Amino acid sequence: MTARFESPDGRVHASYWLETGDDPQRAAEVIAGEQSSGTFTAVPGETPELKARAGARVEQLEVIDHSDRPSLPGGMVSARYTRCRLTLSWPLDNLGPSLPNLVSTVAGNLFELRQVSGLRLLDLRLPAAFAAAAPGPAFGIAGTRRLAGVATGPLIGTIVKPSVGLSPAQTADTVRLLVAGGIDFVKDDELQADGPHCPFDQRARAVMQVVNEAAERSGRKAMVAFNITGDLDEMRQRHDLVLALGGTCVMVNLNSIGIAGLLALRKHAQLPIHAHRAGWGYLSRSPALGWDYAPWQLLWRLAGADHLHVNGLANKFSEPDESVIAAARAVLAPAFDDHPMAAMPVFSSGQTGLQAAPTHAAVGGCDLIHAAGGGILGHPGGVKAGVAAMRQAWDAAQSGVPLAEHARQHAELQAALGFW
Amino acid sequence: MTARFESPDGRVHASYWLETGDDPQRAAEVIAGEQSSGTFTAVPGETPELKARAGARVEQLEVIDHSDRPSLPGGMVSARYTRCRLTLSWPLDNLGPSLPNLVSTVAGNLFELRQVSGLRLLDLRLPAAFAAAAPGPAFGIAGTRRLAGVATGPLIGTIVKPSVGLSPAQTADTVRLLVAGGIDFVKDDELQADGPHCPFDQRARAVMQVVNEAAERSGRKAMVAFNITGDLDEMRQRHDLVLALGGTCVMVNLNSIGIAGLLALRKHAQLPIHAHRAGWGYLSRSPALGWDYAPWQLLWRLAGADHLHVNGLANKFSEPDESVIAAARAVLAPAFDDHPMAAMPVFSSGQTGLQAAPTHAAVGGCDLIHAAGGGILGHPGGVKAGVAAMRQAWDAAQSGVPLAEHARQHAELQAALGFW
Repeated sequence: MTARFESPDGRVHASYWLETGDDPQRAAEVIAGEQSSGTFTAVPGETPELKARAGARVEQLEVIDHSDRPSLPGGMVSARYTRCRLTLSWPLDNLGPSLPNLVSTVAGNLFELRQVSGLRLLDLRLPAAFAAAAPGPAFGIAGTRRLAGVATGPLIGTIVKPSVGLSPAQTADTVRLLVAGGIDFVKDDELQADGPHCPFDQRARAVMQVVNEAAERSGRKAMVAFNITGDLDEMRQRHDLVLALGGTCVMVNLNSIGIAGLLALRKHAQLPIHAHRAGWGYLSRSPALGWDYAPWQLLWRLAGADHLHVNGLANKFSEPDESVIAAARAVLAPAFDDHPMAAMPVFSSGQTGLQAAPTHAAVGGCDLIHAAGGGILGHPGGVKAGVAAMRQAWDAAQSGVPLAEHARQHAELQAALGFW
Repeated sequence: MTARFESPDGRVHASYWLETGDDPQRAAEVIAGEQSSGTFTAVPGETPELKARAGARVEQLEVIDHSDRPSLPGGMVSARYTRCRLTLSWPLDNLGPSLPNLVSTVAGNLFELRQVSGLRLLDLRLPAAFAAAAPGPAFGIAGTRRLAGVATGPLIGTIVKPSVGLSPAQTADTVRLLVAGGIDFVKDDELQADGPHCPFDQRARAVMQVVNEAAERSGRKAMVAFNITGDLDEMRQRHDLVLALGGTCVMVNLNSIGIAGLLALRKHAQLPIHAHRAGWGYLSRSPALGWDYAPWQLLWRLAGADHLHVNGLANKFSEPDESVIAAARAVLAPAFDDHPMAAMPVFSSGQTGLQAAPTHAAVGGCDLIHAAGGGILGHPGGVKAGVAAMRQAWDAAQSGVPLAEHARQHAELQAALGFW
């Protein structure tokens, strides 16, 4: 695959869906000015030479359609609002290959402009200098497979439920059932970090005892993503504890810690970082505002995320399948020619083996974590049969055999089809 | 003033504007479940006892009105969408007084639920445990006044323009004019951090030489907020350089670094932290989604922000005045009875002395930074006259004297009225 996010010319490129009540070309120039050397009025020091060197440039402006009302309030009043695809570019000299300053540049004040009645960041293309400056995922797909002991096929995973409310010992009991059933991957809920009722350290110790005992018996250690979300010192301490206990993964909620937090954790970490996107809805749920997943996940991959949540096909949330597929493909797409920095997409939410074949077809492979809750725990034969049925569904997907046909030779899958 | 953000009962409270195609009570329960012990289906371990202890609680649900179409796509289809004010509460035992985990709890997956066709976080009330655990602003209003040498009245400020494109020497030349004119406060643009064309260290050295020389002459040192936005190590190094050079303020873009980043910087910093909200538009511009400013600024104040941007009255962006006023009042409102943790609101964007009286009336005082660009630089008498005119406008506001009347005795103000 060719690099999906590499700039063609050494400048930073960002593409937007823009809706404006102004003349689109003028609106594009205002946005470019606000995000570089300009301001609302002419400034003495903004010479033509300075503007040519430091100003953002309108690279592309294509009108898509029009509307007679604005998508978002507060913008300039107009009889007609034009929707376009706008691409801006910036010289790297303005910001350097700095992820936090990239965010200020491509997703700063511009959303508040009066010329804007809709603005959504669709795409980013970055100079290779970012590949050199950003750490990227330390483990990625290969490192995750190695630590989880899963050479081929997806990692079959699940989430500890109830998400909140179990004690450390109860959490460990739940994990015992799961690892005894042969699961590859278990994660904490995004809400379960270090509440007084289930302190992190106690939970990690209790869970890793179970995981280590099971690994001694089976020869393969399930990967448990411990939610270490907290301030930086807490995240480092919790990471160190997980590492000392023989754990193989830590998890953080990206929107809760921010990019400087992830960069600092990445610098310290010796384990894969499982990245949850809790809060993604407030960044994306309005089609006229915010972020597409492709540019958003790129930032976090560059900052060091090894696994990135992408929801799941036929999920229980509001996201349509085509959006889920685009998100997963973005996570797997090479960022730069010389530094692919791919992460592992994590599919979850209402998942069963029924989604194996369409998920396989959508991403073109098995480099993913497929997390199912009820899809495994609800199996009449228990967890072991539930995990087996998920694997059988993926075997069928990889072989291109219909589930019902594959189920004839596989009892666990056959039983699963009754409740999936 | 009574505390604006203190919980009445030791639980975490969050209020939302909710739009749902479902029965509102059912939607509220689904949201409460998703954000605590529940999931899409009943789970064996979710006992009534666990649910009573760990479940989020619907505290209030008031129907506001109805709509025949959803504000946001992707939710359940319905003939009628109900808008309500919903208040949920959580036991502190679920999360502890942790700001990052608070964000996951009150602003996590819930925005993506199918039951939601609109969701906006309006308000937060936190147990006093957060006051004990969170650092809060180290300097706040009093510390900022002391360092800036401004005992009463607003800090009159400005932003270096052009925002991007000046060299370190050119930046220092601009600052020289400003401090010679008697300005109290100067800030870097949010886009100007450490680009190769204007490296941070060179800029800080050049600017502080100018500032220190002027302070030796005048006996008062202008406060310059240096934009140190970057990864954590960079922010710490840049902070240390500013401190070593005799500087009195550092600045960060909150959405570019995140809460764990600000908490770590706050732990290290010995200077006030000037907090820019670049990107606020993507969090707030859709009325049916995202964040109100009151809960958002609370998180950053608790994490250590000393100054918080609130836009300005009659600003050049899309935000209406009532929203600006509510934001500024929230920044000044005491968070907890025993720990007010107030920050200093920063007014900017198209500001002149014309906004002095309405701003004064709106916030009920002068504990603020009033940043004007053209409103100062455009004065026919130069920067010094521009700064004087701004101060005269504020004197008039505090005395309740109309500008035109006050201008009769104040030549700089008189001249300014011609171009404001």
